Amino acid sequence: MTDFLWPIRVYYEDTDAAGVVYYANYLKFMERARTEFVRSLGFEQDKLREQEGVVFVVRNVSLQLHQPARFNDELEVVSTIQKLARTNMIFKQVIHRVAESKSLCEAEIQVVSLDAEKWKPRAIPPAILQAIK
Amino acid sequence: MTDFLWPIRVYYEDTDAAGVVYYANYLKFMERARTEFVRSLGFEQDKLREQEGVVFVVRNVSLQLHQPARFNDELEVVSTIQKLARTNMIFKQVIHRVAESKSLCEAEIQVVSLDAEKWKPRAIPPAILQAIK
Amino acid sequence: MTDFLWPIRVYYEDTDAAGVVYYANYLKFMERARTEFVRSLGFEQDKLREQEGVVFVVRNVSLQLHQPARFNDELEVVSTIQKLARTNMIFKQVIHRVAESKSLCEAEIQVVSLDAEKWKPRAIPPAILQAIK
Amino acid sequence: MTDFLWPIRVYYEDTDAAGVVYYANYLKFMERARTEFVRSLGFEQDKLREQEGVVFVVRNVSLQLHQPARFNDELEVVSTIQKLARTNMIFKQVIHRVAESKSLCEAEIQVVSLDAEKWKPRAIPPAILQAIK
Repeated sequence: MTDFLWPIRVYYEDTDAAGVVYYANYLKFMERARTEFVRSLGFEQDKLREQEGVVFVVRNVSLQLHQPARFNDELEVVSTIQKLARTNMIFKQVIHRVAESKSLCEAEIQVVSLDAEKWKPRAIPPAILQAIK
Repeated sequence: MTDFLWPIRVYYEDTDAAGVVYYANYLKFMERARTEFVRSLGFEQDKLREQEGVVFVVRNVSLQLHQPARFNDELEVVSTIQKLARTNMIFKQVIHRVAESKSLCEAEIQVVSLDAEKWKPRAIPPAILQAIK
Repeated sequence: MTDFLWPIRVYYEDTDAAGVVYYANYLKFMERARTEFVRSLGFEQDKLREQEGVVFVVRNVSLQLHQPARFNDELEVVSTIQKLARTNMIFKQVIHRVAESKSLCEAEIQVVSLDAEKWKPRAIPPAILQAIK
Repeated sequence: MTDFLWPIRVYYEDTDAAGVVYYANYLKFMERARTEFVRSLGFEQDKLREQEGVVFVVRNVSLQLHQPARFNDELEVVSTIQKLARTNMIFKQVIHRVAESKSLCEAEIQVVSLDAEKWKPRAIPPAILQAIK
């Protein structure tokens, strides 16, 4: 499967008084990219919740911050699925400036499939597994 | 009824690359203060929702920003209820630095009482009206 | 001058436990739209700050919230400049769901042009005034 | 050295439409606790920046999310310094509900000391090293 690319523009809301993107906000950028990744496969998370009773929840994050992004930067989030199991998957996500290859930060993010009511692990819906493979 | 005071410390998360508190974040500070105001009257909003089916939702905001707050500032939100009606109330909220009288920003915020399911206006629970008066 | 349109997708980060977009976050959406509006006129705010020493800062907000937006909604921010003065301008901004005409919320937002060092009002750079007219 | 405790109340701003605290926001809570930890040792980060030209920046995050926190929860962040080197330190931070011992989430966060202008690693000021030991 190929990488999924998603553009991000840095606005004032994303930055802090050190003049750079606030560290936790890279996780917002990465989550936007995962949402769009899943959408690109044909799945809407609000529908998955209503119709299948499934929510995807982050369980583990390993994040390395190499260089800061700044206000007005045009970024790109490069996402790929590194590992796919019955109830969870691990995304590898790298952020770099458009037109620069050097990564600003990168993360491995484990997402689990949960029953939306019981908040317990549940098999990822087969159609999604199929689409990812 | 007397003013309700709530302290706020400015962290990096609240600031932006202009070196000051990001304008929309003053509304977060004000909402924290309203939540604590209601709590100080003896009401917990999660209980109100579960037991009475009521949520409080902001309908109108009028916000004036006079001077910026900065990283590490110790602020105080001064809140008072300016008007109380059957299904809504208007809070007047002013933020200033602790030990300075000059206001940094101020707002009038109209909050409506809604049925949590139908999302339609509903009378404010009598016990709350009573407590406010 | 015609309206400036900017699309916004609602992600989890934008919502709250009431199941809707957190009220202060509409101001983030509106600020993204103003940033893109100014960019569409040919001006980058980081360049304006470095080269002209000018920052644009929100002074007044009047916000009416009619109906909530929800996770995954596709929104559009419609922005226009309502009033243009020597050191400030008033934006009128309305947010609606794509393919629905009913506005979810609307605001009048006064932005002032400040000297980036002294944080005092300064004339809006003539090239910008020109571009807006 | 003993653990540093910092209380956090969960407000609407911290939650998302899944009804729980948005995953990236735990990192905000942890950063507030680190800021207060450093303050409790007698250091203000704005002063450190102005007077010593030092900023502390997050380099690595390893975050495990076990159970969700919800609106109105009273949390406590337990912070300790796990490792202290010349230009960086690793914080171990655990969040649990007040009056419950079970951790909701935990993280190891590596913070580096940078020259505020050059954004390059710099020795942690000796007075801070001293205070931590």
